[in-house]
Amino acid sequence: MMIKIPFEKMKIEIKRVFISTGMSEEKADICAQIHTETTCDGVASHGINRVARFVDYAKKGWVDIDAEPTMVKSLGAIEIYDGNRGPGILNALFAMDKAMEIAKTHGVGIVTLKNTTHWMRGGTYGLKAADKGLIGICWTNTESCMPAWGAKDTRLGNNPFVMAVPRKKGPIILDMAMSQYSYGKLQTTRLKNEKLPFPGGFDENGVLTREPGPIEQTMRILPTGYWKGSGFAILLDALAAIMSGGLSTNEIDKVQEGSCGGCSQIFIAMDPSQVSGEGYSEKIADGIVEYVNTSEPATEDGQIFYPGENSFKNRQQNMEQAIPVDDGVWKEVISL
Amino acid sequence: MMIKIPFEKMKIEIKRVFISTGMSEEKADICAQIHTETTCDGVASHGINRVARFVDYAKKGWVDIDAEPTMVKSLGAIEIYDGNRGPGILNALFAMDKAMEIAKTHGVGIVTLKNTTHWMRGGTYGLKAADKGLIGICWTNTESCMPAWGAKDTRLGNNPFVMAVPRKKGPIILDMAMSQYSYGKLQTTRLKNEKLPFPGGFDENGVLTREPGPIEQTMRILPTGYWKGSGFAILLDALAAIMSGGLSTNEIDKVQEGSCGGCSQIFIAMDPSQVSGEGYSEKIADGIVEYVNTSEPATEDGQIFYPGENSFKNRQQNMEQAIPVDDGVWKEVISL
Repeated sequence: MMIKIPFEKMKIEIKRVFISTGMSEEKADICAQIHTETTCDGVASHGINRVARFVDYAKKGWVDIDAEPTMVKSLGAIEIYDGNRGPGILNALFAMDKAMEIAKTHGVGIVTLKNTTHWMRGGTYGLKAADKGLIGICWTNTESCMPAWGAKDTRLGNNPFVMAVPRKKGPIILDMAMSQYSYGKLQTTRLKNEKLPFPGGFDENGVLTREPGPIEQTMRILPTGYWKGSGFAILLDALAAIMSGGLSTNEIDKVQEGSCGGCSQIFIAMDPSQVSGEGYSEKIADGIVEYVNTSEPATEDGQIFYPGENSFKNRQQNMEQAIPVDDGVWKEVISL
Repeated sequence: MMIKIPFEKMKIEIKRVFISTGMSEEKADICAQIHTETTCDGVASHGINRVARFVDYAKKGWVDIDAEPTMVKSLGAIEIYDGNRGPGILNALFAMDKAMEIAKTHGVGIVTLKNTTHWMRGGTYGLKAADKGLIGICWTNTESCMPAWGAKDTRLGNNPFVMAVPRKKGPIILDMAMSQYSYGKLQTTRLKNEKLPFPGGFDENGVLTREPGPIEQTMRILPTGYWKGSGFAILLDALAAIMSGGLSTNEIDKVQEGSCGGCSQIFIAMDPSQVSGEGYSEKIADGIVEYVNTSEPATEDGQIFYPGENSFKNRQQNMEQAIPVDDGVWKEVISL
């Protein structure tokens, strides 16, 4: 059952939980803010639903609550940091902030992070850049959860990839994992006794299926765009690991300290205002949104959205009307 | 019918054609080399098959044979150029070369190009970076050829995107357009009276189909990964146009000077040797390739390839044994 919790109430509760793990008040506040914003935007799976798991990881020592990133090297427009297994959200916010700072000087700034932990929703860091008028690109590698194209066993991460463009009326933002559906989506679809809208993986006979259950069993989730998402996942992994001097998916698989334990990330910020002024960037972004939004719908009552439009609307609506959250998840957080 | 033409013979013939359009001997040599390499790698569609179209564009004045890129602005690690409608291959080679030069100083180098023309195969520029031991990322926007997710009319470019990682035993390289299949693939599949291996777009009833003919008629080709490729195409367009100060797809659609006439491009080079030394980069790349290649195949005689493996093998084989080319295309080139 879904209940509704106001933003501030949710944040206070999550903050209390993080403080109880031993996190400083200031850091707990930031992490709680991000988990709540993510839930508010409609992505509870990477917001409030992950609070209990974070606490578990902290207790196991897979996340070092107190660790902060330390610089390994500066190449000028690229800085390389060791995340020291600190909280993934704090490390990632630090990295995107630094990248934005560098971009102000060099036009582009890149920060790479090795040895970090789960960053929750990748879109957070794209939005942070866009909020400051900058273009943000970032991605992470993960432990393996998806077979390469043509393979049976999971050897690729789903390596979420984010691109964000600032826009006064609402940023254009893509936040996509390399699997067509997440395991979370398979689970919720199965629990509702429904089928996926499109094939999401292979069953035990190697046949593409819309039934979530058989895919959960084979773990043969489908890369987005078949061979294309498979290839993209491989390249994202290689770039993140190489440019951070960190671990690639095959090495993360050996560590086995929870989802994304020891992963590698890249944060790129670019300053569009330095190219042709802020006005040009707004004009292009508005033009693209208008062209997309005014497409002819494929179905009678259809509507075409630009990337990020729905989560922007969710945030506005849920800030006013409180945030929908699963009853059981809310009770779990309260009990922590 | 396919015939086989040795590399040098093909290059000489293409070079002769380019010189006949008024191109300098030196520039014609470079363009002919790239068209021949592309064909040799197994991508004739963007190699020799496009020679006649290039000549046509040059005659119409859509490509300015003599134009060279001029700098608009330098932001430090980013340089912005006007392509002045010069030959897309020459502009793109220039841009990736410059990006690599900047990367040597700043760790990363970005060159953006506005007002350029068709770059033929995007992978060319990723390979150029990888050949020099650098990571290369580049993409282009295009005129629209694909509907946004949920729409009927074509308002997105297929915006090819390239990522390349150097590796001594053969680079890892992704070269993907945002449509699941190209119109070229639809055509060749139809001519063979075959079906696509997976749905490639919508028929006149709005139903996903593997039949190429109906998709060619609706022009409702499927974005790779459904809503994901649609969103990715939109972000690639926005970034390329904004960061180059150039045209976005909706504006290219107004120009109508051939495929990619006036398009915007981004070239990013990063120097992995400066992060943890060349050895680390090789080790990561080799580790990823080995992990992928030794996956358990989904079918009995299956084989799992890393991105770029097949074109690398094609090049080696076709350099030795001559390059397969369609009889009719070869005759057309000879007649030009």
